[in-house]
Amino acid sequence: MMRVAQVFSLLFLLADGSFGEYQPTWESLDSRPLPDWYDRAKIGVFLHWGVFSVPSFGSEWFWMYWQDHSSSYVDFMNKNFRPDFTYQDFAPMFTAEFYNPEDWARLFNASGARYIVLTSKHHEGFTNWPSSYSWNWNSKDVGPKRDLLGDLANAIKEKAPHIHFGLYHSLYEWFNPLYLKDKAASFHTNNFVVGKTLMELYELVNNYEPEILWSDGDWEAPDWYWNSTAFLSWLFNDSPVKDTVVVNDRWGKGIPCHHGSYYTCADRYNPGILQNHKWENAMTIDKSSWGYRREAKVSDYLTIHELLTTLAQTISCGGNLLVNVGPTHDGRIPPIMEERLRQMGFWLDVNGDSVYDSVPWKHQNDSMTAGVWYTSKGDVVYSMVLTWPEKNELTLGSVVTTNTTVIYMLGHASRPAPLPFHPLGSSGVVVTFPPMSEVTGQWVWVLAMTGVTPI
Amino acid sequence: MMRVAQVFSLLFLLADGSFGEYQPTWESLDSRPLPDWYDRAKIGVFLHWGVFSVPSFGSEWFWMYWQDHSSSYVDFMNKNFRPDFTYQDFAPMFTAEFYNPEDWARLFNASGARYIVLTSKHHEGFTNWPSSYSWNWNSKDVGPKRDLLGDLANAIKEKAPHIHFGLYHSLYEWFNPLYLKDKAASFHTNNFVVGKTLMELYELVNNYEPEILWSDGDWEAPDWYWNSTAFLSWLFNDSPVKDTVVVNDRWGKGIPCHHGSYYTCADRYNPGILQNHKWENAMTIDKSSWGYRREAKVSDYLTIHELLTTLAQTISCGGNLLVNVGPTHDGRIPPIMEERLRQMGFWLDVNGDSVYDSVPWKHQNDSMTAGVWYTSKGDVVYSMVLTWPEKNELTLGSVVTTNTTVIYMLGHASRPAPLPFHPLGSSGVVVTFPPMSEVTGQWVWVLAMTGVTPI
Amino acid sequence: MMRVAQVFSLLFLLADGSFGEYQPTWESLDSRPLPDWYDRAKIGVFLHWGVFSVPSFGSEWFWMYWQDHSSSYVDFMNKNFRPDFTYQDFAPMFTAEFYNPEDWARLFNASGARYIVLTSKHHEGFTNWPSSYSWNWNSKDVGPKRDLLGDLANAIKEKAPHIHFGLYHSLYEWFNPLYLKDKAASFHTNNFVVGKTLMELYELVNNYEPEILWSDGDWEAPDWYWNSTAFLSWLFNDSPVKDTVVVNDRWGKGIPCHHGSYYTCADRYNPGILQNHKWENAMTIDKSSWGYRREAKVSDYLTIHELLTTLAQTISCGGNLLVNVGPTHDGRIPPIMEERLRQMGFWLDVNGDSVYDSVPWKHQNDSMTAGVWYTSKGDVVYSMVLTWPEKNELTLGSVVTTNTTVIYMLGHASRPAPLPFHPLGSSGVVVTFPPMSEVTGQWVWVLAMTGVTPI
Amino acid sequence: MMRVAQVFSLLFLLADGSFGEYQPTWESLDSRPLPDWYDRAKIGVFLHWGVFSVPSFGSEWFWMYWQDHSSSYVDFMNKNFRPDFTYQDFAPMFTAEFYNPEDWARLFNASGARYIVLTSKHHEGFTNWPSSYSWNWNSKDVGPKRDLLGDLANAIKEKAPHIHFGLYHSLYEWFNPLYLKDKAASFHTNNFVVGKTLMELYELVNNYEPEILWSDGDWEAPDWYWNSTAFLSWLFNDSPVKDTVVVNDRWGKGIPCHHGSYYTCADRYNPGILQNHKWENAMTIDKSSWGYRREAKVSDYLTIHELLTTLAQTISCGGNLLVNVGPTHDGRIPPIMEERLRQMGFWLDVNGDSVYDSVPWKHQNDSMTAGVWYTSKGDVVYSMVLTWPEKNELTLGSVVTTNTTVIYMLGHASRPAPLPFHPLGSSGVVVTFPPMSEVTGQWVWVLAMTGVTPI
Repeated sequence: MMRVAQVFSLLFLLADGSFGEYQPTWESLDSRPLPDWYDRAKIGVFLHWGVFSVPSFGSEWFWMYWQDHSSSYVDFMNKNFRPDFTYQDFAPMFTAEFYNPEDWARLFNASGARYIVLTSKHHEGFTNWPSSYSWNWNSKDVGPKRDLLGDLANAIKEKAPHIHFGLYHSLYEWFNPLYLKDKAASFHTNNFVVGKTLMELYELVNNYEPEILWSDGDWEAPDWYWNSTAFLSWLFNDSPVKDTVVVNDRWGKGIPCHHGSYYTCADRYNPGILQNHKWENAMTIDKSSWGYRREAKVSDYLTIHELLTTLAQTISCGGNLLVNVGPTHDGRIPPIMEERLRQMGFWLDVNGDSVYDSVPWKHQNDSMTAGVWYTSKGDVVYSMVLTWPEKNELTLGSVVTTNTTVIYMLGHASRPAPLPFHPLGSSGVVVTFPPMSEVTGQWVWVLAMTGVTPI
Repeated sequence: MMRVAQVFSLLFLLADGSFGEYQPTWESLDSRPLPDWYDRAKIGVFLHWGVFSVPSFGSEWFWMYWQDHSSSYVDFMNKNFRPDFTYQDFAPMFTAEFYNPEDWARLFNASGARYIVLTSKHHEGFTNWPSSYSWNWNSKDVGPKRDLLGDLANAIKEKAPHIHFGLYHSLYEWFNPLYLKDKAASFHTNNFVVGKTLMELYELVNNYEPEILWSDGDWEAPDWYWNSTAFLSWLFNDSPVKDTVVVNDRWGKGIPCHHGSYYTCADRYNPGILQNHKWENAMTIDKSSWGYRREAKVSDYLTIHELLTTLAQTISCGGNLLVNVGPTHDGRIPPIMEERLRQMGFWLDVNGDSVYDSVPWKHQNDSMTAGVWYTSKGDVVYSMVLTWPEKNELTLGSVVTTNTTVIYMLGHASRPAPLPFHPLGSSGVVVTFPPMSEVTGQWVWVLAMTGVTPI
Repeated sequence: MMRVAQVFSLLFLLADGSFGEYQPTWESLDSRPLPDWYDRAKIGVFLHWGVFSVPSFGSEWFWMYWQDHSSSYVDFMNKNFRPDFTYQDFAPMFTAEFYNPEDWARLFNASGARYIVLTSKHHEGFTNWPSSYSWNWNSKDVGPKRDLLGDLANAIKEKAPHIHFGLYHSLYEWFNPLYLKDKAASFHTNNFVVGKTLMELYELVNNYEPEILWSDGDWEAPDWYWNSTAFLSWLFNDSPVKDTVVVNDRWGKGIPCHHGSYYTCADRYNPGILQNHKWENAMTIDKSSWGYRREAKVSDYLTIHELLTTLAQTISCGGNLLVNVGPTHDGRIPPIMEERLRQMGFWLDVNGDSVYDSVPWKHQNDSMTAGVWYTSKGDVVYSMVLTWPEKNELTLGSVVTTNTTVIYMLGHASRPAPLPFHPLGSSGVVVTFPPMSEVTGQWVWVLAMTGVTPI
Repeated sequence: MMRVAQVFSLLFLLADGSFGEYQPTWESLDSRPLPDWYDRAKIGVFLHWGVFSVPSFGSEWFWMYWQDHSSSYVDFMNKNFRPDFTYQDFAPMFTAEFYNPEDWARLFNASGARYIVLTSKHHEGFTNWPSSYSWNWNSKDVGPKRDLLGDLANAIKEKAPHIHFGLYHSLYEWFNPLYLKDKAASFHTNNFVVGKTLMELYELVNNYEPEILWSDGDWEAPDWYWNSTAFLSWLFNDSPVKDTVVVNDRWGKGIPCHHGSYYTCADRYNPGILQNHKWENAMTIDKSSWGYRREAKVSDYLTIHELLTTLAQTISCGGNLLVNVGPTHDGRIPPIMEERLRQMGFWLDVNGDSVYDSVPWKHQNDSMTAGVWYTSKGDVVYSMVLTWPEKNELTLGSVVTTNTTVIYMLGHASRPAPLPFHPLGSSGVVVTFPPMSEVTGQWVWVLAMTGVTPI
């Protein structure tokens, strides 16, 4: 039946009457410039929320790991539920009674994030909006009984309009029988894509106008199965967000790290060296899970210092940082995650100049002192220092000072004063830090240097 | 998008490469002879079982009436459930823990039924089998966690192989968004039919090989929307049950009572006069509902006398009787319904000769005595007498006796003796009943007459 | 601590200042005449309703059998509930949403019953009224959220005031830790009785004024542990129902069948011969359980003929018949039980003269024909005939006719006529039955004979 | 019935045959010396856990506030639960599946606490142990299905044996009908106390041997209603913990702040000046609730600086600090609370010398610089400094230096060096702080001074 479906797609395109600026080829799609806002934004908040937030045990891959006989999951189910309890039985417990999207919007704003990405649908197939293509397996029909996604979109628009709204979407669904049939046919049929995935993507884009489409779950099938290029050509040519939308790179086996507005390459991708294509480090505050898991202890969460270390590395190397939190089944962002977001926001309030709108400098990290990462903006070079230096003296091996060199520390008291330094000739400079007690910032300190050149 | 879907249908037929004996026109389909077994069977048991069996209140139309603001339903929900409880939330409570299909098969056998018809899917859309096209809204994924339909099919095959297995199937689904979209487009799109209804019908027939397909929910749209004739031509030409399958008449607006293997015309259809096309009286033991409803009292159920009265009227006029019972959410056939079925079976054990394999006689009911209904088989004429006659003398105005006339009562003691009678010339006969205490049967008495002619 | 508790009891009695007509000794208590109404009433309805009505599986002894490792109960729990599910977890599911005590009252009236006995508390300890001594384990705090008992008492008073209201009460509670401690102390402490059982009994009697107190659960401990005689002396001397209350005989090990207003001796006690003390046959329509059990089939329920057989035997031998039904967790009397009660009521409408206010005759059952049971009232002798006689001729071996003998059949058409008979001298009489088709009654037929004498 | 109950108490005492060292009078009880361990321990962790942890909304007074028509509680219930949902219905949802008492013990140890106090039973009456006097309303029968209290007692014994185990116990129970009856009788009956409260207290002490008995819920009735002095005389004379047990002061109306091993006086009692009797500041990390409440935001929790400020004030004035956390319905201590406890533990690791085994100094807080609090031990005076001083110069107005004066900062690098200071004659001293970057500690800094005298 593959041919039928392809005819269908073709007809669909014809019906829409459009071959616009971009062709459904990667060559053409890759020629589209990255919308400006994305690189300047730098910091996003990622949200993994779904039926997996009900067991909130192990990870958001709960369903798959359980079915795959992973023992901790099997034990958890055997111990706590009746014998024939299915994953679907969790859905009615996805109550979201404390879900307050306005509060969330205010929190994201306070965190310093400039965009968010919400899971519209994870691999479980449950849609967080009332999709016409996911009857009785969506947040309006069961569980929350509301349009979780739409309510957040509206709240962002009202309370934090400068934050760009993005959506995560899984192409595949682990246990959807239509998908499994296509897969059993080696993807030579695509009833699942034609009847569900594409229909959903159009519905999502037309109804909610996301400025990021964070695709996932692509890896089992090639891009031609997913109709990815056709969809993206529509997205870039004709969709309501054609001018501003940004997409990642997960659009089919072999595509990640090769095509897309920006690359994600892998989870927690953090290469540590400058990349020649815009990329994003999607990482998560709970070191072991994207979805909320109840058994996590404080030691399982990144400290604010660890989070800022990752931020410094990522931004220095040209990436954006997408910080993930996992809301609960009842609609809360756990206080420990809220605290991390607010700590990040506090730090960005002081040190945001080194992050937003910045570009990588010639060097990413210092050649002599470990834990020092660079960014730049105009004629300012920023160094983000992860550890307060011994005896308050920081040696930088990648910076040469000049006659006009001036060095400040961001957040140095109310009356900022240039810091003393002495050049090491052409091999660097030693900067004297102010008394720590005079500094507003914490955890990671940023020097703003003008009149310096790279070695 | 209508044209696309039509193209799809056409392609589908072409892909199957088949225009067989029957064309997808009513003229051709109606030319197919009724498979012999159906008319001989006479008695079937109908089963309405689904998520509506969970609230088991009001009727199987619970969802629709509730959404339609019918006050008793709204009150029931307001009083007993949390504010945002949805119909879908009933599904996990459809537990079926007492469901024993072997017991059911034995009961249907004891009832004297020769076929059964189970709701594979009612208007709520919930499938009682694990359909690939109803993910997370079927009896395997939620609720019973088993293939209710397949398990019954197997039990019938093993425990009562002479009983024909049939399936009810609703074409429309009240609240399926795909259906509602097609409807909003005045049925000029048919995504719902192409992606769901037809897929299900093929799946049902291929996997379970039902010998009756009892279609319903057709009335809002014409047959061309449902693709009815195309489907039926496949069913009659190429399906695994092409030789024996029987279908009713609910295949689109205007079709009932005009096309189909047999006619149902209306619920509880019982015309009282001979019909010129095979028909069926689908009726229900609970006078007010097809699905089980907990609030029913004894007075809401047909007495065995009322049930047998309907049986006599129906068979006499050439119909089949389809007696409905409503199983419970936990998989039981309530004892009061079991009792009625067993009473009917007891009666048929004694009087079945007048029912199975019979044909209508020249007259259907007697011209002089009300409550007497006729059938015939070979040279025997049967009269079913609903009320024991005053002074044991029954006057029949539609029967003329002859020299060879012999009249027995079915179930008259162990040593049956011909009953005395005296002819009323050409205007009838008076038959003397035996002492009631010598008669095995109850409720309705049957005379078997040979050597008689109609007036 | 036994002595302390005894002191307490003593003080209690002293505080009440009363040694009335009856002393707390069996000799004194047994001297109280049986209130007249009870023997005349003959027919009662028994109701077993409690948390056991939620699993409604096996029997009302569910909790005990399960804890005792009875395999069918253990399997039922393992298959259907989470591992650590306790019996207490059933209580919230005791919803009673269909409970309509007015309907119940009307049904009891229609059944011909002259009294009812409701389980106020079974061995599980759950009280069907809001007891101060069973906090959080009563029908007001969990489950029904209403005073089941009080609501029925009021409904009876309003809708069927001639029906006497009675209460069943279990002295012991299987798993009450206070009881288990007393038991472990060989009943030499009685904290359970002082703090719970007696308090409840006083509360019940004072608040609801039952005219029957149907005690149970006495068998593990002697009457002095239960304080039975002290309580009964209060009940007979000072309680609000002192003039009309009737109690059974289950007041301590060794007491049943020896002391009490009437004897029950054993479950389904039906001795078949005349007793020299008023007794009651407490039996149940479901042959295997007093509480409702969902798995019961029609064959598990008494037929109306079996029920009337028991009635005839019981009344003939001087007993009262207490017919048990088990309501459901949602507050319904299942239709099959309703049907039996209404059939009994229909029979009593026709034949009640032989039952109500009757007394045993000299003979209880006939010496020549099995299945014939006698009662009498004034100069009328009634014979209840369980089987319609062969050739309509009934031979009675215990009745001698005289010149003045007249024999009628109850329910013989609208114009009752004396039945023909011919005496067999001093050894009996043969009575000719009317044509069965002229008789209103069914199942069991009653002859009313005047002018006869016993052999 | 009061007299009866009093007789009962008397008999009880007589039965035990004991008038020991302490008489049941406050004068005698107050003469008992405070067991040494308590004052040295300084820091405890308080745990509020119960059925209120299920709604976990508003506060642990949920039940009372809801019944009292507090609108936010009423709204919460109306919005999320079926109409007749009762508080008791929450109990089955108290699942505690993640409860790991060994982990808890390790956490309490890491927090620096030297004792814990767990709610054995709050005003709701639900016992966290399988009490014989709270059948079906305890953690073994419903909800967790385990002995929460006993399991924690054992875990503490095994994993942190130096931590003293204490129990909170509410004398009254808001809705216990026995209590309400006593109250309605102006406490001239005490069935509730005799049959429940005292029984529980004996059971608790005998089975679990707590070293703190933290009484509460006393305020509506006088001590003679609660039998407090009798109970305490048993506790101090004959109980298994008679040598080490410590009790607070909530033993009857008018008793708090007047009698008891130590005083609590009021919630969050923090007088700010030296007290002449041992006292405790019971306070809670969630500023608005003792029980866990889901709606709490980060801003609702004390920061570690606020917590340490309270600690400094409390210890300086002779109090112990009892820091409350609220576990969840599923048995977890929320990470934000775990973080605060671990931060406190980190601080105590560095600065614990100023806390454990310390005694108040002559002055409690400094006369010139706000936010400086004193303790002492032997010849060392500690000053806890809540704010790092401007220009690193701290002026102390309550300390006079001498020739032998040496001042260190706790946690000052690895090679601690005496801090420079210059005396202000008899009016104080100015101490120069080390560079902040050399100091291990955070939030609050402690100076250890020898050779100083108070002004």
